[in-house]
Amino acid sequence: MKKIAVLGSTGSVGTQTLDVISHAPEQFRVEAMAAGNNAALFIEQIHQFQPRKVSIATKELADHIKGQIPAGIEVYYGDEGLVEIASQTDADFVVTALVGSKGLDSTLAAIEAGKDIGLANKETLVTAGHIVTSMVKKHGVTMLPIDSEHSAIFQCLNGESKENIQRITITASGGSFRDRTRAELEGVTVEEALRHPNWSMGAKITIDSATMVNKGLEVIEAHWLFDLPYEQIDTLIHPESIIHSYVEFKDTSIIAQLGNPDMRVPIQYALTYPNRVASPSERLNLAKLGQLHFREMDYDRYPCLRMAFDCGKIGGTAPTVYNAANEVAVARFLQGEITFLQIEDIIASALDRHEVISLPSLEQIQETDSLTRRIASEIRFR
Amino acid sequence: MKKIAVLGSTGSVGTQTLDVISHAPEQFRVEAMAAGNNAALFIEQIHQFQPRKVSIATKELADHIKGQIPAGIEVYYGDEGLVEIASQTDADFVVTALVGSKGLDSTLAAIEAGKDIGLANKETLVTAGHIVTSMVKKHGVTMLPIDSEHSAIFQCLNGESKENIQRITITASGGSFRDRTRAELEGVTVEEALRHPNWSMGAKITIDSATMVNKGLEVIEAHWLFDLPYEQIDTLIHPESIIHSYVEFKDTSIIAQLGNPDMRVPIQYALTYPNRVASPSERLNLAKLGQLHFREMDYDRYPCLRMAFDCGKIGGTAPTVYNAANEVAVARFLQGEITFLQIEDIIASALDRHEVISLPSLEQIQETDSLTRRIASEIRFR
Repeated sequence: MKKIAVLGSTGSVGTQTLDVISHAPEQFRVEAMAAGNNAALFIEQIHQFQPRKVSIATKELADHIKGQIPAGIEVYYGDEGLVEIASQTDADFVVTALVGSKGLDSTLAAIEAGKDIGLANKETLVTAGHIVTSMVKKHGVTMLPIDSEHSAIFQCLNGESKENIQRITITASGGSFRDRTRAELEGVTVEEALRHPNWSMGAKITIDSATMVNKGLEVIEAHWLFDLPYEQIDTLIHPESIIHSYVEFKDTSIIAQLGNPDMRVPIQYALTYPNRVASPSERLNLAKLGQLHFREMDYDRYPCLRMAFDCGKIGGTAPTVYNAANEVAVARFLQGEITFLQIEDIIASALDRHEVISLPSLEQIQETDSLTRRIASEIRFR
Repeated sequence: MKKIAVLGSTGSVGTQTLDVISHAPEQFRVEAMAAGNNAALFIEQIHQFQPRKVSIATKELADHIKGQIPAGIEVYYGDEGLVEIASQTDADFVVTALVGSKGLDSTLAAIEAGKDIGLANKETLVTAGHIVTSMVKKHGVTMLPIDSEHSAIFQCLNGESKENIQRITITASGGSFRDRTRAELEGVTVEEALRHPNWSMGAKITIDSATMVNKGLEVIEAHWLFDLPYEQIDTLIHPESIIHSYVEFKDTSIIAQLGNPDMRVPIQYALTYPNRVASPSERLNLAKLGQLHFREMDYDRYPCLRMAFDCGKIGGTAPTVYNAANEVAVARFLQGEITFLQIEDIIASALDRHEVISLPSLEQIQETDSLTRRIASEIRFR
C-alpha cells in the first residue's frame, strides 16, 4: 500500500487526488494532508481519509478544526505545518498541489526527507528549477509530473531515449478568450475570464490559461522536468485539449498522449506509475468527437508566453520574477483592481525593473520573489 | 553495422527499405536480396547495393540477370532461392516484403536460421500465426512490424506492460472509395480502385484498402503480433492517415503514434529499433494540417472487415481461406474478370465451402491455401 501526503488537499488537484485515492482504497492510504483556508471541506476530508497529521493555513483555523476532527490526529498550521506534512510522516509519496510559489519550501523538505514527489505545483520548478532538480538527483527520489501536459510527455517518453527526441510540443486550448482578438480583450470581466472551455480548474490557473502564462510556466517546467533546451520545446493551439501533448523523435515519428480532459488520469498515473489501473474517467471516443483542430501559436496574441520563453532562456531569477509578478497581477485582476490586459503589463514592468541573478541561491530566489511581489502590487495605472 | 537481407526488393516496401538503407550506408549493409519479375529494377539495385546473394522468380530471369551484374554475386531463383536469401547468408535481419502468402516459407526459414525479422508480409501471420509466433519464441528472434499501423502500436507499447492494455485501435483511411455508398461501388473500374488517397503502395494492397480486407488482415496480424484477443482490437476510420494507430490503457489514457503517411518511417524504425535516427521523411506539421477527422467503422459498408474478425475468432484455417480467396479475387478483379463487389462474394463463398481445421499443421495450411485458390479461381458469376 502506498502512503500518501497531500499538500493542498482542498484545491482542485487536491480534491481530485483524494477522489482517485477513494476509488482505490486498497492501494493507497492518506498519511497526511495540508490545506489553506477552506476549513469546512478540510474537516470533511479528514473524517473521510483519517490521516495521522494535518495542517491548515493559520493558528486560528487550526484551533477551529481541532474540536471537529477525531482525537489523536495531530494538527499543525502555517508554513511550518506545510513542511511537517511534507517531510515528517511515513508517506512514501507527496502530492504537491499547492497553488503558487509557496509550494517551494515544502517540496524541498519532502525531497530532503526522501519522498517521491507528484508535482502539481509548477511554480516549484519555475522559480527554483536548478535547485529542485539537483536535490532530486542528490536524494535519489522520483519526481512525477501531475500536470496533464507534462504527464502526457512523460508517458510518451516511456521506453524512449532522451537522445532520440527532436522536440516536445505542449498543447494549449487557448483558454477562455481564444477566439477574441487582442482588441476584444479590453474590459473583459473576471467572470468571463473564469470560464475555461475544457478544464475544471482553480481560479488562478484559469486566468493563467487565458493569458497563456500557464503555458509559459509549463514550458519552463518542461525544460527542467525533461532536461531539454527551450529550442526543443514547442507549443500548439489545440482547442479541444484531447491531445494533451506530444513528443517528436528524430525519425519524424510523433508519440502523443490523448484522453478526455480529466485531471484524475494524470494524477492517478503519478500515483500508480509504472502501473496503470482502471479509472472512473470517461473513455475517449474519437469517432463521437469527429474531429480535432490545431493552429499555430500566436506569440503576438499571447505576449506572456513569449516572455516565458525569454525568461526561461535568460534563466537565473528571471522566471522567479515572471511567476511572482504574475501571481500578484492575477490576484489584483480577480479583485477588480486592474484590467485583464494589465496582467501582462505588470509582468513586463516587473521584469524590466529586475537585474537578473544567475544561479541564485534559495535565499536570493526568496528575496527576488518578495521584492517582485511588492513591486507588482505597487504598480499603478492611470 | 547491421547486415540485412531484403525479400521482395523491387516491390513498394522493398524499394523504400533500400531507400532507407541508402540514407544510412554507415549503419546498414545489404547482404542479400530477392525479387519477383522486375529484372530491370533488380539489376539496378544489385549494382547499387552489391549484395553477396540474389534471387529472382524464375530460372529464365536468373539466367538473364547473370550477365548483367558484377561477377561473384551468387544468383538463385524460385521458392528455393527465396529460402536461400532468407536463411543462408550472414544477414542479422531479414525484411520480409513479399506480397501474399508465398512469404511464409522464407519467413519461417529465416526464423529457424535465427534471423531477426522485419515483417512487412502480413499474410505470414494471417495464415500461420500460431506456427510463426511459436517458432519466434523457440528460436529467440525478434519480430518487428513494418506495417505503419503495427509499427505505431509497437511504438505506443514501448515501456508499457501488456496487462495495462484496454484495447488497441487500428486506424483506416477508408481507401479509395471511402466516400462512396455500397450502391456506388457497382461497376467501379480498376483504375479508380488503384487511386489510394494517402499511401503510395502496391496494387494488391491498394485494392485491399478499398475493400477493407487490408484492415482485416491487419487485425489478424495484430492479434498474433501483440498476443491480444479480438475483443481488444478495434478499428476506426481516420481519412488523413496521420494517427497511424493507438493503444488505450486501462486508465483511459491513449498513446498514439502520428506522422505523415510515409512507409520509410516504420521501415527505418524496424531497422534501427530500439534507436531512432534522422529520417529523410517530411516532418508532420499539425498546425498546417489544421484538423484531423474520425468516424466509426461501418461493418455493413465493409463486410470484408467483419469477415476478417469472424475468421480471426474462429481461428485455425479460416484466416488462411480468407487470405487466399482474397488474393485470387483481387487478381481476378485486376484482370477485369470480376467486379469490385464480387471480391467479397468470392471470399464469402470460399469460406462457406471450407471446413475449418483448428491448429492446422504447415502442410494443412498449405493444402488449404492451394485448395482455396483453386475454388476461388473457379467461382463464376453470371
